[in-house]
Amino acid sequence: MPENDSPNYRMEEDSLGPVRVPADKLWGAQTERALGHFAYGEEQMPIEIVHALGRIKIAAARINSSLGLIPSDVAELVERAASEVAAGQLDEHFPLRIWQSGSGTQTNMNVNEVVANRAALLAGAEPGQKTPVHPNDHVNRCQSTNDAFPSAIHMAAVDVLTCKLLPALENLAAALGDKAESYVGIVKIGRTHLQDAVPLTLGQEFSGYAAQVVDSVMGLHGMMDGLLTIPLGGTAVGTGLNAHPHFAELAVNELRALTGYPFVTSENRFAQLAAHDDLVAASGAVRRTAVALMKIANDIRWLGSGPRCGIGEIRLPANEPGSSIMPGKVNPSQCEALTMACVQVMGMDAAMGMAGSQGNFELNVYKPLMGHCLLSSMKTLAGAVASFTMYCVSGIEADEKRIGDVVDKSLMLVTALAPAIGYDRAAEIAKLALERGATLREICLELKVLDAETFDRLTDPSSMIGPSA
Amino acid sequence: MPENDSPNYRMEEDSLGPVRVPADKLWGAQTERALGHFAYGEEQMPIEIVHALGRIKIAAARINSSLGLIPSDVAELVERAASEVAAGQLDEHFPLRIWQSGSGTQTNMNVNEVVANRAALLAGAEPGQKTPVHPNDHVNRCQSTNDAFPSAIHMAAVDVLTCKLLPALENLAAALGDKAESYVGIVKIGRTHLQDAVPLTLGQEFSGYAAQVVDSVMGLHGMMDGLLTIPLGGTAVGTGLNAHPHFAELAVNELRALTGYPFVTSENRFAQLAAHDDLVAASGAVRRTAVALMKIANDIRWLGSGPRCGIGEIRLPANEPGSSIMPGKVNPSQCEALTMACVQVMGMDAAMGMAGSQGNFELNVYKPLMGHCLLSSMKTLAGAVASFTMYCVSGIEADEKRIGDVVDKSLMLVTALAPAIGYDRAAEIAKLALERGATLREICLELKVLDAETFDRLTDPSSMIGPSA
Amino acid sequence: MPENDSPNYRMEEDSLGPVRVPADKLWGAQTERALGHFAYGEEQMPIEIVHALGRIKIAAARINSSLGLIPSDVAELVERAASEVAAGQLDEHFPLRIWQSGSGTQTNMNVNEVVANRAALLAGAEPGQKTPVHPNDHVNRCQSTNDAFPSAIHMAAVDVLTCKLLPALENLAAALGDKAESYVGIVKIGRTHLQDAVPLTLGQEFSGYAAQVVDSVMGLHGMMDGLLTIPLGGTAVGTGLNAHPHFAELAVNELRALTGYPFVTSENRFAQLAAHDDLVAASGAVRRTAVALMKIANDIRWLGSGPRCGIGEIRLPANEPGSSIMPGKVNPSQCEALTMACVQVMGMDAAMGMAGSQGNFELNVYKPLMGHCLLSSMKTLAGAVASFTMYCVSGIEADEKRIGDVVDKSLMLVTALAPAIGYDRAAEIAKLALERGATLREICLELKVLDAETFDRLTDPSSMIGPSA
Amino acid sequence: MPENDSPNYRMEEDSLGPVRVPADKLWGAQTERALGHFAYGEEQMPIEIVHALGRIKIAAARINSSLGLIPSDVAELVERAASEVAAGQLDEHFPLRIWQSGSGTQTNMNVNEVVANRAALLAGAEPGQKTPVHPNDHVNRCQSTNDAFPSAIHMAAVDVLTCKLLPALENLAAALGDKAESYVGIVKIGRTHLQDAVPLTLGQEFSGYAAQVVDSVMGLHGMMDGLLTIPLGGTAVGTGLNAHPHFAELAVNELRALTGYPFVTSENRFAQLAAHDDLVAASGAVRRTAVALMKIANDIRWLGSGPRCGIGEIRLPANEPGSSIMPGKVNPSQCEALTMACVQVMGMDAAMGMAGSQGNFELNVYKPLMGHCLLSSMKTLAGAVASFTMYCVSGIEADEKRIGDVVDKSLMLVTALAPAIGYDRAAEIAKLALERGATLREICLELKVLDAETFDRLTDPSSMIGPSA
Repeated sequence: MPENDSPNYRMEEDSLGPVRVPADKLWGAQTERALGHFAYGEEQMPIEIVHALGRIKIAAARINSSLGLIPSDVAELVERAASEVAAGQLDEHFPLRIWQSGSGTQTNMNVNEVVANRAALLAGAEPGQKTPVHPNDHVNRCQSTNDAFPSAIHMAAVDVLTCKLLPALENLAAALGDKAESYVGIVKIGRTHLQDAVPLTLGQEFSGYAAQVVDSVMGLHGMMDGLLTIPLGGTAVGTGLNAHPHFAELAVNELRALTGYPFVTSENRFAQLAAHDDLVAASGAVRRTAVALMKIANDIRWLGSGPRCGIGEIRLPANEPGSSIMPGKVNPSQCEALTMACVQVMGMDAAMGMAGSQGNFELNVYKPLMGHCLLSSMKTLAGAVASFTMYCVSGIEADEKRIGDVVDKSLMLVTALAPAIGYDRAAEIAKLALERGATLREICLELKVLDAETFDRLTDPSSMIGPSA
Repeated sequence: MPENDSPNYRMEEDSLGPVRVPADKLWGAQTERALGHFAYGEEQMPIEIVHALGRIKIAAARINSSLGLIPSDVAELVERAASEVAAGQLDEHFPLRIWQSGSGTQTNMNVNEVVANRAALLAGAEPGQKTPVHPNDHVNRCQSTNDAFPSAIHMAAVDVLTCKLLPALENLAAALGDKAESYVGIVKIGRTHLQDAVPLTLGQEFSGYAAQVVDSVMGLHGMMDGLLTIPLGGTAVGTGLNAHPHFAELAVNELRALTGYPFVTSENRFAQLAAHDDLVAASGAVRRTAVALMKIANDIRWLGSGPRCGIGEIRLPANEPGSSIMPGKVNPSQCEALTMACVQVMGMDAAMGMAGSQGNFELNVYKPLMGHCLLSSMKTLAGAVASFTMYCVSGIEADEKRIGDVVDKSLMLVTALAPAIGYDRAAEIAKLALERGATLREICLELKVLDAETFDRLTDPSSMIGPSA
Repeated sequence: MPENDSPNYRMEEDSLGPVRVPADKLWGAQTERALGHFAYGEEQMPIEIVHALGRIKIAAARINSSLGLIPSDVAELVERAASEVAAGQLDEHFPLRIWQSGSGTQTNMNVNEVVANRAALLAGAEPGQKTPVHPNDHVNRCQSTNDAFPSAIHMAAVDVLTCKLLPALENLAAALGDKAESYVGIVKIGRTHLQDAVPLTLGQEFSGYAAQVVDSVMGLHGMMDGLLTIPLGGTAVGTGLNAHPHFAELAVNELRALTGYPFVTSENRFAQLAAHDDLVAASGAVRRTAVALMKIANDIRWLGSGPRCGIGEIRLPANEPGSSIMPGKVNPSQCEALTMACVQVMGMDAAMGMAGSQGNFELNVYKPLMGHCLLSSMKTLAGAVASFTMYCVSGIEADEKRIGDVVDKSLMLVTALAPAIGYDRAAEIAKLALERGATLREICLELKVLDAETFDRLTDPSSMIGPSA
Repeated sequence: MPENDSPNYRMEEDSLGPVRVPADKLWGAQTERALGHFAYGEEQMPIEIVHALGRIKIAAARINSSLGLIPSDVAELVERAASEVAAGQLDEHFPLRIWQSGSGTQTNMNVNEVVANRAALLAGAEPGQKTPVHPNDHVNRCQSTNDAFPSAIHMAAVDVLTCKLLPALENLAAALGDKAESYVGIVKIGRTHLQDAVPLTLGQEFSGYAAQVVDSVMGLHGMMDGLLTIPLGGTAVGTGLNAHPHFAELAVNELRALTGYPFVTSENRFAQLAAHDDLVAASGAVRRTAVALMKIANDIRWLGSGPRCGIGEIRLPANEPGSSIMPGKVNPSQCEALTMACVQVMGMDAAMGMAGSQGNFELNVYKPLMGHCLLSSMKTLAGAVASFTMYCVSGIEADEKRIGDVVDKSLMLVTALAPAIGYDRAAEIAKLALERGATLREICLELKVLDAETFDRLTDPSSMIGPSA
């Protein structure tokens, strides 16, 4: 049995016995055990989950007090201490990583312990005595990790989505839309299969990017209802044993008031403890966003490739020296960081699907990993998108001269002739022009397929950027 | 140059020259080339995509005729031939696999060629002459593969989702709901972390499964708007070059009438040719469904494990002998086939994400693969779910005796004591009971923690299946 | 109970009772049940697995006869019938898909039934009577599906790898190596981050591709030992119950003789029934190959992009018309089909990992899916690589004029100045040249950084394609 | 232009101009820019890569000095400063995350800058002046990020594999092997398809786990050659421009001496800059390990499920209280953390494959992500395995009484009768026993199939754990 022989430590105790804890930390025995048993990995438990658990403890204390389940002075202490947790003032007392019990028990107990110990200090008592506030009987009253922890993941996801990812995407959509508008008159070559195709405007091209981002935003909004539904009140297996019959409804109401988000209580808490399909679906919408962003970022770096030996239709901002050996080189580093983030999101989404499928009976025990993957995906993507918008998209400039030179060379203007002269004849002309290194016009006139005036009218690129027949 | 020296073949021609084609087949030069150049793989182009292309050709012929772009007798021939394609009467003339150009060009041309040749036969002409109906100038008029092919994938996905996957899931949800209702009075042990937990009813457990399936159905419905939006009218790069300005709107109207599905025309066709975020999102919803089904199927086979040395709380139907060496063995084969299908869906979904991210400029060239992965996932899952419902779920029987024996042994009924005696004391009692192989009641009475009557009242499993405080 | 009222059917029976089977088919009751219970999906059980099971039945019959476990005349009948299975002469009698019991029991029984019925016919008896040859007691003697089926997957994988994938890759490596050799003198611009970099030769670029393929081949060879190790003899759970103590060793010897492959018996059959880490590892090596091929195919289509508005440094063969609307367009369709195949392989590999992780106790029940994913990945990739080699790589031509024009324009030749004038000064020169649209030479001479002769000597691209200091 | 108006900062400069840097940090302008442009994400650049780059700088300085490329006193300063980097003494000066340029340029420059500034301090000079040691011209001499950074990833991977993952796995294999040995006499029921099957010993079951881990170790060793091969000397595009012809060979020799690992120089540096197939392959081997561990950890928690209502054949150590609401509950938390780690590894492996496939021309720009995913997978798995071994496997105890009770009830002992009485009759007996709730013995005697003595001899479980016929 551990013994405390140093003023730098105090003793804490749980149902397995006493444990030595650093004196300047507010956590208790169960947190300390977890630090020892899971001493590896770099993935901290997302602090947003801890803050959300703080809010749950506040809401629970209020409701438990109003229902007469805990004394009002205890409830007040819990609320004061939990408010500090929720506000991020006690972050240093949450040292655990996601590597722990798959229910998140150690993190829920970390919150219970810190709230109880902080409450003791607020009441002028010693930490570690579980009095006047008991971590289980008071802080955790009417809750189990099994309902509180996934509720906290949902709450954190709603917040990160609302405050970080969606605004970042909306800014990007706006920036792309601005570019689309300002490029509305720039006719350029289209490319399909990487091969020269019929023309469009650079504005049309960018409008496609903007549309993809807007649709991704809608896809993410479509997941909000699932994320706003939380199983709080289900306690250990979804039945709500040891929770007051009105607790679930009242506590969720309280969370609505506390956060401003319209949380609702789950219609089937068995499903929401044993599976996390809503989180998997949300991850799918983040993945879809990453898929769209990857296409956009790739296009932008290809369009900006060069400066002299690539496509070179746009110029990207020069943010940093690009090479440790090639002087003067500037690289599309914002595109690169964004596409790396997209690939990471896709990998994490694969992990989400697998983790989500592995529940057994009344519990899925991949909760910390799922919380990490979803929140990390959202946060990294939000950051990468914000940087990409500010340091890349906003500074893009079209190289109109090069764009014009390129479209003039293309053979695919021949497509506009097909309705007039038929596909087969048009194909023949294109083939001859390519073989001889000639222009379409030269071949057409030589073969007397069309007179010069008709040819020029039909193949004016600026008349080829919309429907016609 | 190939020469035709056999009555079993005829000559067809495209812009690269003549090709020999089997005389009894209606396809033309481009299909035949593709057969030679891509002579591998087992994944046939999903026939639903071919049928949808048939519908597009019908709609296009009608609109092209009404706009005066092709003669009405030609349009009529196109419509008659394309109707046979759409109805599945010419399936043998579509031999291509998904391994071809990434735009689906060869399959679109396969349809154009078969329609033109079938139209020639209907008109009493010879196939292979491109007259009276030309595959490009008439059948493909106002279209490009680049807009027609992804439109066909969307149409096929809407149909498979509506007619196969959603009904199968709704049947499963109903079957699970029926079970939940009939098991409403069966109190059983809950299990979290695979460890004994507090009780719930078997009906509550099955209600969780039903809820997961219902939510999956809602998730799939949420993808319908994206799938109903099609880029037809965008032609080669999204601008609609060579399509009449009214074609897109009119053709989509026609497809609505033809199919009964409320298709709408895309607001941004550039995005829908160059990316397939709607398909990726739909795949994500199918994946989420697979994730849910995997949990359910796993639970059911675990609950049915035994017959004598497992969990054994339910009995599954004995559909086939289970072992080639162990006589009398019966296995949960429907669960196994379903979970294999779920894993396959997750793998295909990973491919969907990657493929969707790889568009360049005006075109994504992973279209055949994406059509295959999405449709195959939906169809396999639909089939597996239907079989699982019919041959497994419907026949499940609860083993009430065993369920009762098991719950009575559990130590986790101690949880119901915690509100009365505190978490710490309750933990101590559970620990002692486990160590001594005793019952909770024995320990409680021995330690005089509670009198017998109170103990019995608090730990009645049937009073533990709902909230309380 | 089913009744036979038609000459088109006969009755077969298993331990669950009688079943009606088509009279012209050799399968029995268990196969017929599986057709009914798993009537969905398109993925046929890979025929290579059926053929391998045929070989196992031959080997087992010989050994069982030599050990006196079955009569020699029965063994001879089994061998004759199983040889027809192994040779592919009875393929039409194997109708099952991979959707069945996760052990492959129905397919193993399908083989047992067909061999028994075919043996009956060979002996002049009626099929369906299990005499003179019994499907379990004779054909399956000393085996269980649990050891025979994974052994057959291993055998099939060894064969497909040896006869299809490895030769296809070796041909590709040779074709790329040929190109590398013939392009040894063509100096071109290098590109990093898609931006112009220092030069290299086109031969060096292709040598990198060849090296990647050669290394992939080595990676696949590294998996061969695992694939050659088979658990035959482990029977139902790995112990070998009901198999003669010498059966495993002797049967594997026999398979070596039959196939020419150096199969060995597993050192731990428990692991090989309950998990398929060797198959997962092999899939990983196939995935790595797909990753390499994706890079190569992407590079080749980018290098061939154009004809006039892209990179255009090489020309790819024109295999088919590229567009249904743009006359004269030719696309890199072999690259597209290959990259689709690569993405599919990556998706299947994700499924392999997940499936492989899901074993429980003595058995992994994802065997048919794993056999399908691994074999399908290998076969599709082999086919795609062979086509890509023949119809794309072999026909690549360098556009030396364009390559020369491009390298001359590049600013990154400035890198060669850095050792002489320092990184910072060199960077300044490159920046000025880009801003003014000037050449490096002009700036250098203007700023008197170097004299003309020194400049020309240092920046000769052909002297920049190897080490120097 | 930024201006320095505070003693807390100093000015640094790169080719894009001056930048303000915290005075107490040794990094320079490029690092500072990267901090601003990529201010998001939690994934720090793995410090092992920074340390490896430190070693590369030491080796380069020695060789550059010996070749006369940089003055010997400069080289000595570089070596002293770089040695501090390699030893981890300057870790606080490496603040960058993996979100940066996809080549790792900012991290390579971070090292160059820190070494140059630290060298200045060592020489009594001011940091930020690039003298006496210049970050590019001296520290980076004969290198490019493009060859140095992937070399550092390889070096870090070799080290983490050798010092962390492999020893952890070897310890686990030993612990499982110890259990296998001590359980050699414990006959238990086998389970296939989760259904009761024929018996084996608990020792055999654990021997399967040990074999899987041993094979995973071999699989990882098989990747070592690829990881030991490094492209140092290839500089910017693989040609080695600006590196001395002997640099590559000499520098790698020096790294061998410095580290003790037998690094070799790449045969084709073009491939190793533009692709990272060796890293993808290594990730595949780590994934395979995770697949194996997932099966093992799942089995162990299932075998330990209970304590009263599960399988309960083994008891796991009680490391921490398992529930915040259920007193006395103990959960298999080590299994849970390990399986979460396995799922994360599988997700990261999916990202590795995708990232590895996305190189273009002379460079793959997903290097920081790939370094992170591979090293993080290895480290997390190493930690999780070590904890699992120490806090779970080592403390497992067999519940021999329960194991014996269970095996005695099983019906699958009937399998041992099949060779004597035939499969069909044996199946009939098993079916009757199950229907009537009787023992096999009772049915056999009632039907007079066998006499009691023969029955008892054939169905003695302890005689069923090995081959027989």
